[in-house]
Amino acid sequence: MSSTQAVNKPFRAIDVIRRKRDGGELSQYEIESLVNAYTSGDIPDYQVSAWLMAVVLRGMTRAETAVLTDAMLHSGEVLDLSSLDAKKVDKHSTGGVGDKTSLVLAPLAAAAGLAVPMISGRGLGHTGGTLDKLEAIPGFNVNLPVAQFRRVLETCGCAMIGQTAEIAPADRKLYALRDVTGTVESPYLICASIMSKKLAEGIDALVLDVKTGSGAFMKNESDATFLAELMVETGERMGKKVVALITDMDQPLGNMIGNALEVVEALEILRGAGPEDLRQLCLELAGWMLHSGGAASSLAAGRKQSEELIASGKALDRFRQMVELQGGDPRAIDDPARLPRAQHSMKVFSARNGYLASLQCEQIGNACVILGGGRERKEDSVDPTVGIVLHKKVGDKVSSGEPTATIHYNAEPCALRSKQLLEESFQISDSLLSEKRPLIHRVIGRTDGGSGDKI
Amino acid sequence: MSSTQAVNKPFRAIDVIRRKRDGGELSQYEIESLVNAYTSGDIPDYQVSAWLMAVVLRGMTRAETAVLTDAMLHSGEVLDLSSLDAKKVDKHSTGGVGDKTSLVLAPLAAAAGLAVPMISGRGLGHTGGTLDKLEAIPGFNVNLPVAQFRRVLETCGCAMIGQTAEIAPADRKLYALRDVTGTVESPYLICASIMSKKLAEGIDALVLDVKTGSGAFMKNESDATFLAELMVETGERMGKKVVALITDMDQPLGNMIGNALEVVEALEILRGAGPEDLRQLCLELAGWMLHSGGAASSLAAGRKQSEELIASGKALDRFRQMVELQGGDPRAIDDPARLPRAQHSMKVFSARNGYLASLQCEQIGNACVILGGGRERKEDSVDPTVGIVLHKKVGDKVSSGEPTATIHYNAEPCALRSKQLLEESFQISDSLLSEKRPLIHRVIGRTDGGSGDKI
Repeated sequence: MSSTQAVNKPFRAIDVIRRKRDGGELSQYEIESLVNAYTSGDIPDYQVSAWLMAVVLRGMTRAETAVLTDAMLHSGEVLDLSSLDAKKVDKHSTGGVGDKTSLVLAPLAAAAGLAVPMISGRGLGHTGGTLDKLEAIPGFNVNLPVAQFRRVLETCGCAMIGQTAEIAPADRKLYALRDVTGTVESPYLICASIMSKKLAEGIDALVLDVKTGSGAFMKNESDATFLAELMVETGERMGKKVVALITDMDQPLGNMIGNALEVVEALEILRGAGPEDLRQLCLELAGWMLHSGGAASSLAAGRKQSEELIASGKALDRFRQMVELQGGDPRAIDDPARLPRAQHSMKVFSARNGYLASLQCEQIGNACVILGGGRERKEDSVDPTVGIVLHKKVGDKVSSGEPTATIHYNAEPCALRSKQLLEESFQISDSLLSEKRPLIHRVIGRTDGGSGDKI
Repeated sequence: MSSTQAVNKPFRAIDVIRRKRDGGELSQYEIESLVNAYTSGDIPDYQVSAWLMAVVLRGMTRAETAVLTDAMLHSGEVLDLSSLDAKKVDKHSTGGVGDKTSLVLAPLAAAAGLAVPMISGRGLGHTGGTLDKLEAIPGFNVNLPVAQFRRVLETCGCAMIGQTAEIAPADRKLYALRDVTGTVESPYLICASIMSKKLAEGIDALVLDVKTGSGAFMKNESDATFLAELMVETGERMGKKVVALITDMDQPLGNMIGNALEVVEALEILRGAGPEDLRQLCLELAGWMLHSGGAASSLAAGRKQSEELIASGKALDRFRQMVELQGGDPRAIDDPARLPRAQHSMKVFSARNGYLASLQCEQIGNACVILGGGRERKEDSVDPTVGIVLHKKVGDKVSSGEPTATIHYNAEPCALRSKQLLEESFQISDSLLSEKRPLIHRVIGRTDGGSGDKI
């Protein structure tokens, strides 16, 4: 009857809830038991939601976060891609407005000889999602069974699908519960959710793009940095190469927001054109992917190689090939007129002379949601055609009566509400701001050989 | 579309959870909506348990606590006892070991001309419960419908029953959820639970006995004081006279623990005998009941009147009358041999000479649970016959081989485990301790006319 035999004590959810409530550290056995029992339906939602709230308010140690990630990762299938010779690399972004880098990066890294088994999400709230963008390409199928996903990957070096029922089912169930119990906003839970899904892809290296600013979930840089460090350390504890870039989301990335429009802009980048901020971020992230995947000896070399793969058209070729393999119309890649388009457009004008001082980025995301281009709730459907094209970005000179944006829409009442939001989002000042926010705020992780310089 | 129209915003549980999670203060509308929606089944357990955990970790303001209490109180029937001329007074204890004061106080206050509509609970864990004690009296029925409860009260001035389905259903549902989600231990939630049930009795005044020490839920005095202040202020905000006594539960109250045994000891007090600590606490609590109910002009006068009502046998007469009205055998009141008794008894002996320095009070409670005299889980049944009689209390001289306690039992293996716990619970020292813990640590509330002296 010795009380030191705690190791043999049967798992009771109530004990785990109480220990976390009181600020204690949970053991591997306790966390694994909780995740497994919840996934199998052996403990009820109401106990897990109380535990989640205790985690939100009490936090977790690095060891607990890694154990939680691992338990969620192993709640389902972990892809075994060891039959592929290429190094498997992926990129994940915490979500923003106008962020279409995934559409550029997957074919670009594939063209460099890496394999990119990318499992992405849909847009929610003011942020867009890669799956919605891909589905703007006529015929593109994001719901491939694992076997077909593997065939596409083997054939062209990249494949892009949505989360399957087999991958990290614990995360799927926990995320649905967090969404309705006010327990989304915890860096520990966000880390475990992202990393369990990404590591289930069977990758060797991961580049994380953690957004900060008015259009990001993490509005301030210290929160973004905390989450980035947590994810990097968790990935490293699990034997993966992980680097995280804290990048700017205080204004939309590039000029186009909306699903088909973002495909258009991603294609521009793959053709060597497109807006400079988007192009720079793509090259930086691609540089890190190539370097951490071993395809380039340094970040600089990876960046240079990426520029060449764009210039030669090889990256675009990979994208066209992937689109075709996933059922999409490859002609849309070379002729964007084949992408779906909104029926009408409407311009937004500046009311005064001056310089664009800031863009309220979350508002701009919401202005696109109002048009039908995003979702307020998960079950909403998305209109691929609508969106916003920005003609001015922060620091640009504007004149009274000059257009600052164009709204592409199908329903006028929505367009008028969207226009009002956009007008409110543009802050114009008399003089040019002295300091511009960097595109890349900092780099976190073992940045050996790489340059973390701000660009 | 002004955002200042928050008052018209429809209630969403997720918003209330988030606000409390972030440390905000909830409005009356939000708390009432949450309680009503939960009671009617319109929001699920998993949202409420997340909210409860946020309350445990973030706390509540006094205003929020009062609103929560009021919402729970009005989730069901509030007894209207205005047809009774007498002032309605009750006493509530936070639970301890050997605490049989309710059995003395209800008839005593009734004999003084007050009405005591007492709704009590059952024992759980190491603590006993008034309903279990009453049911040790052959035939006593604690499950009266409200109409019959009222008739007993009108006839003899006191009635003692269990919680009905009509009284504070929100508390019943919330308590069941708290019990399995690690959210019991919050002074705000404890306060709302106790006060909503007590105020639903339709009383004018309430005396709270908040226990502190090794046998109490609040082990230290500062936690007990915090809870007491919260309950007093909540009651006063709702227009009731409330006084709280912080009393000692570092050793069992009186000498007898176990349901039938505690009836025996309560009857001894009502006959003017019984152990001094129990007698003193009964007189003090009765004094406060009489004073706050207006039957005595001061605490001292209330105490004196209580002594007289015991000496004259009037208090015992009321108890006998109530027992008969609630279906119990009144002969058991005058002949305790008619109460159920355990088959066997076993003595516990001191291993050394010295003075009893302390009694591990929770352990002694558990020693009674092991015999079958209490419950580990709510659904367990209770054996009324078993229990423990202490022959020594803190400060008493003991000799090696002298009996310190007697165990009354029906199953020997249980008795042996109980004996071991009891032996561990007695700490004997060589010299008499210099300072004795007071029986009453402090008095909280508007103690006009009363003396809060430690006794």
